[in-house]
Amino acid sequence: MQSFLTEHGIATSLTLGAVGLAGAFLLIRMVNSCSAGNDRMAEIAGAVQEGAKAYLHRQVLTISVIAVLLVIAIGYLRDTYTALGFVLGAVCSLAAGYIGMMIAVRANVRTAQAASESPHAALRVAFNGGAVTGLLVVGLGLLSVGLFYKIVLEYSGEVKIAINSLIGLALGSSLISVFARLGGGIYTKAADVGADLVGKIEQNLQEDDPRNPATIADNVGDNVGDCAGMAADVFETYAVSLIGAVLVAFLTTHGASEAALIYPFVICGVSIIGALLGIAFVNVVRISPTKALVGGVVISGIVSAALLKPVTDSMFPQAIAFSGTGKLVEASALFTCVLVGIVLTFATVMITNYYTSTAHRPVRRIAEACNTGHATNIIAGISTGHHATVLPVLCIAASIWMCYTQAGLYGIAIAVVSMLSLSGIIISLDAFGPITDNAGGIAVMSGLDPSVRKITDELDAVGNTMKAVTKGYAIASAGLAAMVLFGSYVEELKAHLGHDFVFDLMDPRVMIGLFIGGLLPFSFTAYAMDAVGSAAGAVVREVRRQIEAFPGILTGKDTPDYRQCVDIVTKAALRQMILPALLPLIFVVAVAIIPEHGPYFLGGLLVGTIVTGLFIGIAMTSSGGAWDNAKKYVEDGNHGGKGSPAHAASVTGDTVGDPYKDTAGPAVNPMIKVVNILAILLIPILFR
Amino acid sequence: MQSFLTEHGIATSLTLGAVGLAGAFLLIRMVNSCSAGNDRMAEIAGAVQEGAKAYLHRQVLTISVIAVLLVIAIGYLRDTYTALGFVLGAVCSLAAGYIGMMIAVRANVRTAQAASESPHAALRVAFNGGAVTGLLVVGLGLLSVGLFYKIVLEYSGEVKIAINSLIGLALGSSLISVFARLGGGIYTKAADVGADLVGKIEQNLQEDDPRNPATIADNVGDNVGDCAGMAADVFETYAVSLIGAVLVAFLTTHGASEAALIYPFVICGVSIIGALLGIAFVNVVRISPTKALVGGVVISGIVSAALLKPVTDSMFPQAIAFSGTGKLVEASALFTCVLVGIVLTFATVMITNYYTSTAHRPVRRIAEACNTGHATNIIAGISTGHHATVLPVLCIAASIWMCYTQAGLYGIAIAVVSMLSLSGIIISLDAFGPITDNAGGIAVMSGLDPSVRKITDELDAVGNTMKAVTKGYAIASAGLAAMVLFGSYVEELKAHLGHDFVFDLMDPRVMIGLFIGGLLPFSFTAYAMDAVGSAAGAVVREVRRQIEAFPGILTGKDTPDYRQCVDIVTKAALRQMILPALLPLIFVVAVAIIPEHGPYFLGGLLVGTIVTGLFIGIAMTSSGGAWDNAKKYVEDGNHGGKGSPAHAASVTGDTVGDPYKDTAGPAVNPMIKVVNILAILLIPILFR
Repeated sequence: MQSFLTEHGIATSLTLGAVGLAGAFLLIRMVNSCSAGNDRMAEIAGAVQEGAKAYLHRQVLTISVIAVLLVIAIGYLRDTYTALGFVLGAVCSLAAGYIGMMIAVRANVRTAQAASESPHAALRVAFNGGAVTGLLVVGLGLLSVGLFYKIVLEYSGEVKIAINSLIGLALGSSLISVFARLGGGIYTKAADVGADLVGKIEQNLQEDDPRNPATIADNVGDNVGDCAGMAADVFETYAVSLIGAVLVAFLTTHGASEAALIYPFVICGVSIIGALLGIAFVNVVRISPTKALVGGVVISGIVSAALLKPVTDSMFPQAIAFSGTGKLVEASALFTCVLVGIVLTFATVMITNYYTSTAHRPVRRIAEACNTGHATNIIAGISTGHHATVLPVLCIAASIWMCYTQAGLYGIAIAVVSMLSLSGIIISLDAFGPITDNAGGIAVMSGLDPSVRKITDELDAVGNTMKAVTKGYAIASAGLAAMVLFGSYVEELKAHLGHDFVFDLMDPRVMIGLFIGGLLPFSFTAYAMDAVGSAAGAVVREVRRQIEAFPGILTGKDTPDYRQCVDIVTKAALRQMILPALLPLIFVVAVAIIPEHGPYFLGGLLVGTIVTGLFIGIAMTSSGGAWDNAKKYVEDGNHGGKGSPAHAASVTGDTVGDPYKDTAGPAVNPMIKVVNILAILLIPILFR
Repeated sequence: MQSFLTEHGIATSLTLGAVGLAGAFLLIRMVNSCSAGNDRMAEIAGAVQEGAKAYLHRQVLTISVIAVLLVIAIGYLRDTYTALGFVLGAVCSLAAGYIGMMIAVRANVRTAQAASESPHAALRVAFNGGAVTGLLVVGLGLLSVGLFYKIVLEYSGEVKIAINSLIGLALGSSLISVFARLGGGIYTKAADVGADLVGKIEQNLQEDDPRNPATIADNVGDNVGDCAGMAADVFETYAVSLIGAVLVAFLTTHGASEAALIYPFVICGVSIIGALLGIAFVNVVRISPTKALVGGVVISGIVSAALLKPVTDSMFPQAIAFSGTGKLVEASALFTCVLVGIVLTFATVMITNYYTSTAHRPVRRIAEACNTGHATNIIAGISTGHHATVLPVLCIAASIWMCYTQAGLYGIAIAVVSMLSLSGIIISLDAFGPITDNAGGIAVMSGLDPSVRKITDELDAVGNTMKAVTKGYAIASAGLAAMVLFGSYVEELKAHLGHDFVFDLMDPRVMIGLFIGGLLPFSFTAYAMDAVGSAAGAVVREVRRQIEAFPGILTGKDTPDYRQCVDIVTKAALRQMILPALLPLIFVVAVAIIPEHGPYFLGGLLVGTIVTGLFIGIAMTSSGGAWDNAKKYVEDGNHGGKGSPAHAASVTGDTVGDPYKDTAGPAVNPMIKVVNILAILLIPILFR
């Protein structure tokens, strides 16, 4: 087995990746075979699909302009392989988002239909729709990275060139996912906030009321933001973590250990088996939705760990040496790092759940603060977000320490890969939320029996919690992955310049870099929130205009012009995503080109961005999730229930939380990686 | 002159410090000689004074328990001189707060009376009341540090011991000011928020309506928070910056250059002349309040710079050498650092003004967002706070670079001292705000002519802007001062352990330290906001209880029980300040005692706290100031003016901003210094 996996490790992994993709297509067929309901449902679903597709097409066009310029620059300044990698990463990231969204818009109407049969049938359709994205991301991620590596290696004959070209792939996927996260995030929240402000608050309409001209845009937003944006983002995290680990393996063993280079691929491949079994479990059991979903994750984690123990032992029969740590690393040490990654996944999920679920003190405290008004609710939510940073960061710190003492920087990289290898199942949970959310919308808009909405509402509540907890996982893994990339930056710098590099905190250049890097997440999130605010304002004005011009809309006599709202949000989102998405690029290049001192400033910048980005990311997504659920808790009849002053206050918190948790917060994840990958890419171009 | 200043520099500075104190007492007499108005005014002012005094006495008692324990620990673990220094720092910090507040509570009633004569008379009384605090802080700061240094040097005969004892003084003042800032900040905002929530929103009472049972507590809060808390905080920043510079001078010249050691004292002394002239200017001219106040600062800065040029040249006739930079530093280089500090002061003031004044785009954008409701107002305010971090941080980064290239770490220390030497005049502006605010309250409560309130309102608006801009200055100087302290930590560590220390970003211990340090400001501000929320809740419940039990309160038939509200806020503030104030201590000690790796973790922690603390501090104070002024802008008749839905939304923003800008945000300043000073103090105790 030893010689087999070391020789054919990548090929085996690629086969498993293909199995994962096959599973995804099987699930697509399963979902498509379900009934899509009556004509009215098809009509509404069709409008949502159309809007979502139109948005994605225009997003691709907008991004393409920037991407083409970058490809030319990379091809000219680096080499053709790297430029090709960039293209591949960008295309795969977009494809993951596109396919994930296309299945989601099909799954949601079928979930609505299934909900009129039984809650369990609805759960299955919605979950399988989400699982497509999960399997797609891991299958596509593994195949694209592995195949591209193999092909470049074949053509160039040099490991170094093959690995360098992967940096292009990483940058392509990262950059696209910043755009997708931002564009989709701005779209979804601008439509949501705009629809709520004028519909719920001014006109007293229910959520998803077909008389609200912005309601189709709102439903389109769920798909382009929470499905397409999220899928692109996770594809990126997955691919970049894998590439980061390969890069570290190469740099810290000086290319001497092939096993170390192949091991990350093998972890990803083996975990696909775990993910498939977890997905099968959710489909087979007949227990409560939460138990089924959590059970799927646990099974997936246990199976992966159990399989990886013998695999690790067989791949590393002898201890191997890494530069930097000055000690030999055994198979057991590497397996410990795998376990750290899995345990960290569960820890972050549980901690985020504590801070964002209605069952625990933080959300109840926020709900209580609604009694004394809008302002106290906001204060309580923000403070909860700040509190929520403490435990995850301590867990991350402990993981860094454990992995580093076991196997140096490579150990940290392995923990990240092990963490990300669970994406297959975890993203299934994440994508489950928007599908049930949309199913509810379709049920209301097409006038299905209220009992259907009740079932989708229950699944939606589960989906909300799942969405919130997977965000804790996403930002924690992004933080760790970025750290690995920073390590690669330093190692690459040493290798390229041929001398040692120390980033001493006493060096003013490092300190200045930390400050400048630290401001990036602040500025980035500020622009993202502004974008949502101004795009939502445009929606509000359009809805007010339509209602004024055609008062029959409110009585149901006139049909609102949904398309106009969709169009306004599309344009606004695309226009407003560009500046924040380019911000990290501008800062990195501006700092890197400072003559002589560039590498030092840049090193500080990278770490500064990771540090404040991690905190802002966790704080914003936690606050947002907690506000959302505090509103749900009030709506469940606490503190006066729906229509009470406390409820009005809770709606304010939820609305503030929208751009927090779905636009600015999650977009920080790809952003902190973009700066690090770009830095690695710039080394041979700028520093000599 | 050269030999004179190098020999008698400290004595000369002490004399100038005494002149500053004399100026303060002269101003106290001037303020006291003004008419205190009629009996009703005296009665109300008396109630405020009584509540404020009662609070401060109980605060002193509470802090004393903790301080005594710490003094014993320091005396036992370090030495008696350091313990004495701790006591002196604590006492002076408390005294600055106490005296500043006592004059403020006298100045406010006299300002109200003066406002019934002329706007200019009111400006003068209020400004002079604030200027007492300004002169007190610089005089007391310079005298306490200088005299204590001289005395310990005299008794011990060793420069090293004298300088070590100053670390005790720094810790004493820092720790007390964390308590004072937190306790006062929680008090003032709990009373303010509580009074507003139940008074303005539920009962539709005006600000400062005597029928509101929490109105006296609200006015007491302005004094214990904005006057006493602020004065203690600025005393601390001033003393700690001076001590930091002395420490750096000693450590980086290995005690070889007496001129470098004395120079910080001389800068502080000379600037007192500038402050006195600036204060005189404001008293003499008859131009608009804003022009008069800004003119005072400009004169103060120009005079100080003009005087320091020849002083610097005469003190450093030959270039001196500092360890670390490896080059000789001329007088002109040091004077450049002085100028950098002064320019940075003006830059931060202007930037904060841009983000928080009603005259510029950011505040108007927030006011506009009020049109679409509470939530969009909150989103706009938070994003403004994030935006507001960018330029100050870039200015700080540029200053660090310029000073470091001129004169290494010592250059940065000199810039901080030069920045802080302007405290004398800048704090006069800061303290001016709460005095006019209270004067307005007294005018309303004692039924003076509405024209009086109009004058105090106009001054209050000026005061609000001044308060906001001085916060930018405070946090920027705190960040730089903390950096100097971190440098001292590293130099002290090297000196103590006798070998070189490198805090490499690639060292996982440093990285983990950065993360743990980064979480401190988040956790600290979360607790501070929680404290305001829960204390305000207690006020709301008490006011509701009184109004229910005695409905005659609302008709003016029954007098509310003001004392009960004062008592509740006092207890709540004191109870809730303890945990967050001790948080930095607990984390620093917990990290430092990790065997073998302690110094590395701790080094990372210190920098992590500075980085996230700087951003959180700027973002919170800016958001808060901007919300406050957006409300004022709406109240000035924009977007529907008072009573409109936009106004209701703007009140929510202002209320959220209260704990942001007056509790959590400013308390970060002393916090980031406490961790750094504590680390320096722990070196000989824990590391060997």
